[in-house]
Amino acid sequence: MDPQHDHYSDDDDKPREECGVVGIYGDPDASRLCYLALHALQHRGQEGAGMVTVHNKVLKSITGIGLVSDVFNESKLDQLPGDMAIGHVRYSTAAGSSSILKNVQPFVANSKFGSFGVAHNGNFVNYQLVRAELEEKGSIFSTTSDTEVVLHLIAKSKARSFVLRVLEACERLQGAYSMVFVTEDGKLVAARDPFGFRPLVMGRRSNGSIVFASETCALDLVEATYEREVHPGEVVLVDDTTKEIQSMYLLRPHPPKPKSCIFEHIYFAQPNSIVFGRSVYESRYAFGEILATEAPVEDCDVVIAVPYSGVVAALGYAAKAGVPYQQGLIRSHYVGRTFIEPSQKIRDFGVKLKLSPVKAVLEGKKVVVVDDSIVRGTTSSKIVRMLKEAGAKEVHMRIASPPIIGSCYYGIDTPRTQELISNRMNVEEIRKFIGAHSLAFLPSDSFRKLLGSDYNNFCYACFTGKYPLNPTAPMEESIDDK
Amino acid sequence: MDPQHDHYSDDDDKPREECGVVGIYGDPDASRLCYLALHALQHRGQEGAGMVTVHNKVLKSITGIGLVSDVFNESKLDQLPGDMAIGHVRYSTAAGSSSILKNVQPFVANSKFGSFGVAHNGNFVNYQLVRAELEEKGSIFSTTSDTEVVLHLIAKSKARSFVLRVLEACERLQGAYSMVFVTEDGKLVAARDPFGFRPLVMGRRSNGSIVFASETCALDLVEATYEREVHPGEVVLVDDTTKEIQSMYLLRPHPPKPKSCIFEHIYFAQPNSIVFGRSVYESRYAFGEILATEAPVEDCDVVIAVPYSGVVAALGYAAKAGVPYQQGLIRSHYVGRTFIEPSQKIRDFGVKLKLSPVKAVLEGKKVVVVDDSIVRGTTSSKIVRMLKEAGAKEVHMRIASPPIIGSCYYGIDTPRTQELISNRMNVEEIRKFIGAHSLAFLPSDSFRKLLGSDYNNFCYACFTGKYPLNPTAPMEESIDDK
Amino acid sequence: MDPQHDHYSDDDDKPREECGVVGIYGDPDASRLCYLALHALQHRGQEGAGMVTVHNKVLKSITGIGLVSDVFNESKLDQLPGDMAIGHVRYSTAAGSSSILKNVQPFVANSKFGSFGVAHNGNFVNYQLVRAELEEKGSIFSTTSDTEVVLHLIAKSKARSFVLRVLEACERLQGAYSMVFVTEDGKLVAARDPFGFRPLVMGRRSNGSIVFASETCALDLVEATYEREVHPGEVVLVDDTTKEIQSMYLLRPHPPKPKSCIFEHIYFAQPNSIVFGRSVYESRYAFGEILATEAPVEDCDVVIAVPYSGVVAALGYAAKAGVPYQQGLIRSHYVGRTFIEPSQKIRDFGVKLKLSPVKAVLEGKKVVVVDDSIVRGTTSSKIVRMLKEAGAKEVHMRIASPPIIGSCYYGIDTPRTQELISNRMNVEEIRKFIGAHSLAFLPSDSFRKLLGSDYNNFCYACFTGKYPLNPTAPMEESIDDK
Amino acid sequence: MDPQHDHYSDDDDKPREECGVVGIYGDPDASRLCYLALHALQHRGQEGAGMVTVHNKVLKSITGIGLVSDVFNESKLDQLPGDMAIGHVRYSTAAGSSSILKNVQPFVANSKFGSFGVAHNGNFVNYQLVRAELEEKGSIFSTTSDTEVVLHLIAKSKARSFVLRVLEACERLQGAYSMVFVTEDGKLVAARDPFGFRPLVMGRRSNGSIVFASETCALDLVEATYEREVHPGEVVLVDDTTKEIQSMYLLRPHPPKPKSCIFEHIYFAQPNSIVFGRSVYESRYAFGEILATEAPVEDCDVVIAVPYSGVVAALGYAAKAGVPYQQGLIRSHYVGRTFIEPSQKIRDFGVKLKLSPVKAVLEGKKVVVVDDSIVRGTTSSKIVRMLKEAGAKEVHMRIASPPIIGSCYYGIDTPRTQELISNRMNVEEIRKFIGAHSLAFLPSDSFRKLLGSDYNNFCYACFTGKYPLNPTAPMEESIDDK
Repeated sequence: MDPQHDHYSDDDDKPREECGVVGIYGDPDASRLCYLALHALQHRGQEGAGMVTVHNKVLKSITGIGLVSDVFNESKLDQLPGDMAIGHVRYSTAAGSSSILKNVQPFVANSKFGSFGVAHNGNFVNYQLVRAELEEKGSIFSTTSDTEVVLHLIAKSKARSFVLRVLEACERLQGAYSMVFVTEDGKLVAARDPFGFRPLVMGRRSNGSIVFASETCALDLVEATYEREVHPGEVVLVDDTTKEIQSMYLLRPHPPKPKSCIFEHIYFAQPNSIVFGRSVYESRYAFGEILATEAPVEDCDVVIAVPYSGVVAALGYAAKAGVPYQQGLIRSHYVGRTFIEPSQKIRDFGVKLKLSPVKAVLEGKKVVVVDDSIVRGTTSSKIVRMLKEAGAKEVHMRIASPPIIGSCYYGIDTPRTQELISNRMNVEEIRKFIGAHSLAFLPSDSFRKLLGSDYNNFCYACFTGKYPLNPTAPMEESIDDK
Repeated sequence: MDPQHDHYSDDDDKPREECGVVGIYGDPDASRLCYLALHALQHRGQEGAGMVTVHNKVLKSITGIGLVSDVFNESKLDQLPGDMAIGHVRYSTAAGSSSILKNVQPFVANSKFGSFGVAHNGNFVNYQLVRAELEEKGSIFSTTSDTEVVLHLIAKSKARSFVLRVLEACERLQGAYSMVFVTEDGKLVAARDPFGFRPLVMGRRSNGSIVFASETCALDLVEATYEREVHPGEVVLVDDTTKEIQSMYLLRPHPPKPKSCIFEHIYFAQPNSIVFGRSVYESRYAFGEILATEAPVEDCDVVIAVPYSGVVAALGYAAKAGVPYQQGLIRSHYVGRTFIEPSQKIRDFGVKLKLSPVKAVLEGKKVVVVDDSIVRGTTSSKIVRMLKEAGAKEVHMRIASPPIIGSCYYGIDTPRTQELISNRMNVEEIRKFIGAHSLAFLPSDSFRKLLGSDYNNFCYACFTGKYPLNPTAPMEESIDDK
Repeated sequence: MDPQHDHYSDDDDKPREECGVVGIYGDPDASRLCYLALHALQHRGQEGAGMVTVHNKVLKSITGIGLVSDVFNESKLDQLPGDMAIGHVRYSTAAGSSSILKNVQPFVANSKFGSFGVAHNGNFVNYQLVRAELEEKGSIFSTTSDTEVVLHLIAKSKARSFVLRVLEACERLQGAYSMVFVTEDGKLVAARDPFGFRPLVMGRRSNGSIVFASETCALDLVEATYEREVHPGEVVLVDDTTKEIQSMYLLRPHPPKPKSCIFEHIYFAQPNSIVFGRSVYESRYAFGEILATEAPVEDCDVVIAVPYSGVVAALGYAAKAGVPYQQGLIRSHYVGRTFIEPSQKIRDFGVKLKLSPVKAVLEGKKVVVVDDSIVRGTTSSKIVRMLKEAGAKEVHMRIASPPIIGSCYYGIDTPRTQELISNRMNVEEIRKFIGAHSLAFLPSDSFRKLLGSDYNNFCYACFTGKYPLNPTAPMEESIDDK
Repeated sequence: MDPQHDHYSDDDDKPREECGVVGIYGDPDASRLCYLALHALQHRGQEGAGMVTVHNKVLKSITGIGLVSDVFNESKLDQLPGDMAIGHVRYSTAAGSSSILKNVQPFVANSKFGSFGVAHNGNFVNYQLVRAELEEKGSIFSTTSDTEVVLHLIAKSKARSFVLRVLEACERLQGAYSMVFVTEDGKLVAARDPFGFRPLVMGRRSNGSIVFASETCALDLVEATYEREVHPGEVVLVDDTTKEIQSMYLLRPHPPKPKSCIFEHIYFAQPNSIVFGRSVYESRYAFGEILATEAPVEDCDVVIAVPYSGVVAALGYAAKAGVPYQQGLIRSHYVGRTFIEPSQKIRDFGVKLKLSPVKAVLEGKKVVVVDDSIVRGTTSSKIVRMLKEAGAKEVHMRIASPPIIGSCYYGIDTPRTQELISNRMNVEEIRKFIGAHSLAFLPSDSFRKLLGSDYNNFCYACFTGKYPLNPTAPMEESIDDK
């Protein structure tokens, strides 16, 4: 996805997931199921949505700006016949860009071997290099998205089948990718990079149709049973020869060294999803429990969460600490895109539109408030002030992840390194900045404790600055932090 | 508000609040503050929104279909100058009605003494009678809203000032009303019926401007300090003589016998609001605690809520029962108005779009699930099935209100009496219908326990069928259930 | 219709017709036919359009901003069942007024004897007076349109049938009105003021259904045969007793003294319409012929028109003068509402967007250019300059109407008297102002010549300043210019 | 432009121009001027419009569906800064195609030597061949437009400057093209195929800025003085070295043999334009005069036109015949895209919405009606019937072009050959089919008479079936009909 952004919105102050993908094979209801699966993945991208289906050897495509329910309606879905579909949701970015629609996936290309489409979650770190090489040979580009290079590489491949062309293209590309493809001759291909940065799962409906999706919550909604992840470095082909999947693997690195994104468990994924084979809910609950043990608050009266992402960790904290959990902050269900401020400044206006404190819970209390992460710290300081103004005697903030010190190059939109508060201040300085009575982050070694033998299979670059794969660097130079 | 509806949507199966009102006096930023206050009251009505301001002796009005943020934008607010404003949000109804815009409030009338506007929350029970009398005298009506009669009564009043005309109109009207008015000569009037069915509060900003709103959450967002309720039977006038309020009371009934709507505390109001002088959060938490005492579930593993409205009661239940509260159902933040079903029916599709079960919380567990109320029972049965399919061993449903057996005539949209499940089945029959292992409602006498001396000041008609005021009946025949 | 406007757009510099009306009785296809008839009358009003049908004793109404084809579509028309309909088109006014939709007709009122609707073309000159009286008795008004008073008068009438109520209301009202009404019990009523200022015709389709419309061009499109005008002072009732019309007449003035608007023949009506019993085409052609005789241009090379309204008169001029008519100015078919100017001012930009000169016709020629009227003279001066810049050696302007010196009070939107160029300058001064080599208007006595015995049945107030009926004055004081 | 269409709409039954192009160089107001010029060319394409400007070495692009005034507004133009612009209007096609926006020009490509944009009027006859070759080498295509190949050819060219790359691309392409290009480094290039099928002119504003456009009417509106045509086979470069144009020519064919489209003079171009160095008005007037001489109608009473395109020829006919020209058919100015038919069929409904007969002109008359061309004959038969029903005693149709027997491959959208009525019937059969008393076409040799030595420089393929250049054939095989 488009690699650079400087539109990082202050209000929520969270990293942003950069997309969700869906693939449906062999279901007469493909476009409707794809639509529902995209809806279930809406939290992974709210800017745009799109779908491509294949019918009578023709690809049909509809893409649009906005939520899945804005882009599609009955009549649009009727224009998308066929029993296979791929779909994409895209994260929210600055409004008003006139060229934005061009960048909404899936992308479709017409080539010598026919039309094909792709939906991509992730980010190619050697995109600029590959694009420059392609341009040098006379290729033209019509978007600013890194995903466009994969179309060119496939079209230029001399390999004898589509899946081999995909394999060849993947071997030229470095970075994070979970991709699904369709071709006009009825093939569905799913591919995941050898590090397995971004999730991609596979399930099956009772009628035998196969469903790929970024998270299991999408499988649940379309009543597909979760079977397994697409493995790191795996390229999966489904076509009508057997309606069974055929599996291939990228040759290098061999064996693949998974580096799954730990932030999916901290913030991005839905709590009801299974991601990288683990329950997201259980991870977050455990983060909360560990925090309660490692960073207890003596005699605290109540544990509250910053909704929605802090709730599960707060429940874990409260349970472990033996302190009641209460709904001390309520989130509005109606916050739209743009909001109008009064001319007489209301303090912390943006946050107040989204979050309301409950005085009955907070007044005179020693409060522990649990959030999932701190990025720039601006929102945290507003929340602390809001809680105090609502009567909290003391506010102790607990963060269910370690301090973020590095930007992500693997498909997540984080602010520039220098904007990350943990890069500029130590914990005590941050505590002062946000005005809390105490502040604690999840200790880094919690992951080792929690994940055990699985520990090395995750990427912690945003907490450690050690990147498994350097941006734009050849693969040899990739850094392993084992 | 429009008295009859048969559009009761199945999906959420909750009663619907019929509106929220706002009044701002003496603030140069009136329209922007009104906009924010309406946003804070958005949960009281999502169908339409409107605002009237007064500037240079002219009323400016903008109304529209949709959410507050759909109807207004910077340029619209710029068309609403002046330092006083009234506003209205309207509940969600069937789409597509071509005459719907006409019914969006505030209403404006031009009369012999100038223009004035009104925003009304509630329902006049003698509306048909008064309208017939007015029509008999040659009045014409241009909406299907009961609110229109108040405009006629005021315009026809011979009283010598606007506030006295309002008083006179109120004395002709029976039923539930919390209303705010503006006049072209700069008066703001707020009026509340003698039973005080619907809430209406008053606050003040630091610059002295006065704010009226249905709930205190609106005061909070505009940084107005809550002062007090507008009392049942009170008519409050603010004008520029003193910038202080002047208070009058309806003569009959004397003294007023408040019958505040208990359902505001059960479901309608925001948990962070103070309504009828009490914290909504504390009421709901107490309902949960009482349920835990009165309807315990032995050896249950986990307490979960039907979000969002069941959360606070579930927390109370869990705390009292000493059982962990978990987020066993997650509500989607992206559910739009219309949704497209696949042609192969997905079971309980509508509910699944909104609510997702968390297997990690439910699998193999004996689950208590807390909801605020049951209306027709259709959604409850889907939720129970969903929890079982997600692995719950047992599902025990606890409802934080008594069975609903009567429709509301005082400003709430409930289904017809015969559609109310508690009117057709006893508790055991309902339990079987929804498929729960056990089912319990809040005992009716809990209110007496909880509210103490305040008990008689609330209306319980939906639970008891005893209506403080009969629809269309003359006032003498009103029923008192003390 | 709304009596005052100051939004007079410069570009076209023509008076504006204030509406067209349609009524359909006894046709299963009523809404579709009404839609087509409104389309045929679109030149009489481009701001808004609306329709009311009656089905199962219920009035259905759809109104909207924009052209007929903007407001209605298949699905909207499907919401308008029934075999009777009335419709209205409204002239173009300033955009952006938030209350504009309220003023789009037909208006519907609910009264003691049921619902009824009205569509009105014209203007009540005693509107303010009647409205003040109604307000004094406690009536409220929700629009700024003069049409609203007729609803009140009808609702307040004690007469025993709807048509008699209409009659009674008409007797209270003075001014110009051609109106159609429908009632929920299936009556269609058409009424025309005793002066017959505005046109209203009646026709019949082959299936016996009856059609009322402002002009015969609407009858033509729906294949109704023109039968006759609704007479000045006539009130026509159609209901299901006989499917024949019943006719009544206003008592005063007796006999009616028709004062039909001569400007319908000069500019407003479509050339293919029969208006006030005369062919519009023939009138305009005759005006041109008279001009050629009375104001010849020696040795002129070519006669051209200001399209579209000047074309027929130009043809008459050219034929009489024996000089070739050419298309020297071409009008763009794509001019929208708002247009964007370059920052480097293009001279006479607005006119150039609409009109393009044809050099091949004009270069080196002595040109006669015929227009229908001059209002403020601004456009004329631009046209003369444009023709000269395109190479015309001499430009002689001929105007197919006398100088306009008075505003209209009978349903036409003209600028204020002081803005009318003929009120401020004599012909020679105007000639200089617009830069023409010569200028001539239609001599006033041409009408007497052309119309013969019919001469006294027309209103010439805009040319003479003698008003048949004074605005807001009681009827006795009406001025007769016979 | 997209080569195949089967959406030929019946109602107007005219060939459709496939686009207009504009280029502006060196004007600070480039986007606004381009907008106006596109508006002036709106008759060449109503489906979509787009513009690309260059500012600070960045191309900005806005394209959209609809008219120029739908696609652009002040704020959109503000997003298009810079002193050079190219623009495009696209003809009307079937609505609802989901991929339609992709095909709206100008197209932009990013290549190794930077970004560039193109707007194209015409059609490459060897498009399929060139595309297949490009695909063979691994190029991917993202539109269905033939224009996309030119982007690839330019990007792949090894030539050392942009203009030479364009030249090289043009030498690979065959067919009709009038194109304008911009590059991020500030070059504007205009190119016209060696046959000069489609028009392209050049003008200059008083500030020295240079304007290219399909027709001179666009120059007129932006106050640019017409200098000359871009010559057949010429490639013109403008950049900041001198602000003067540099001219190059394609090598083959040498010398170029112009084959300008005669239909531009018959129907497409605006009458006020100079096209291929000749006045369109004069051509059409002459066609009418010739018809009057070659196909006179004895004792006819009146000559009328089918507006708008038949008017000038009708004037020529009437003048030559010495018979009065009248406006016997009036065209509605409000016909929108879709129109709703009544369920009781109105005969010739579509035509009646657009054209209304004037009885006063037609009744009892022997009428000559002049149209520019007959394609499928369906509309002509409706017009003849309409004239008769309006009272015409005799209807004599005169067509100001020869019978059309061949489809166009050079940028015009005509129906398939078998749908052309003149391909299936002789003149007498057509006369019977349309129901006219007599019918005559413009004799083919009129062109020779009229054009003299210029005769061989025009393409008459649609009348003769002799194509100067065979579709998809190599250039050697091109047919010359000299």
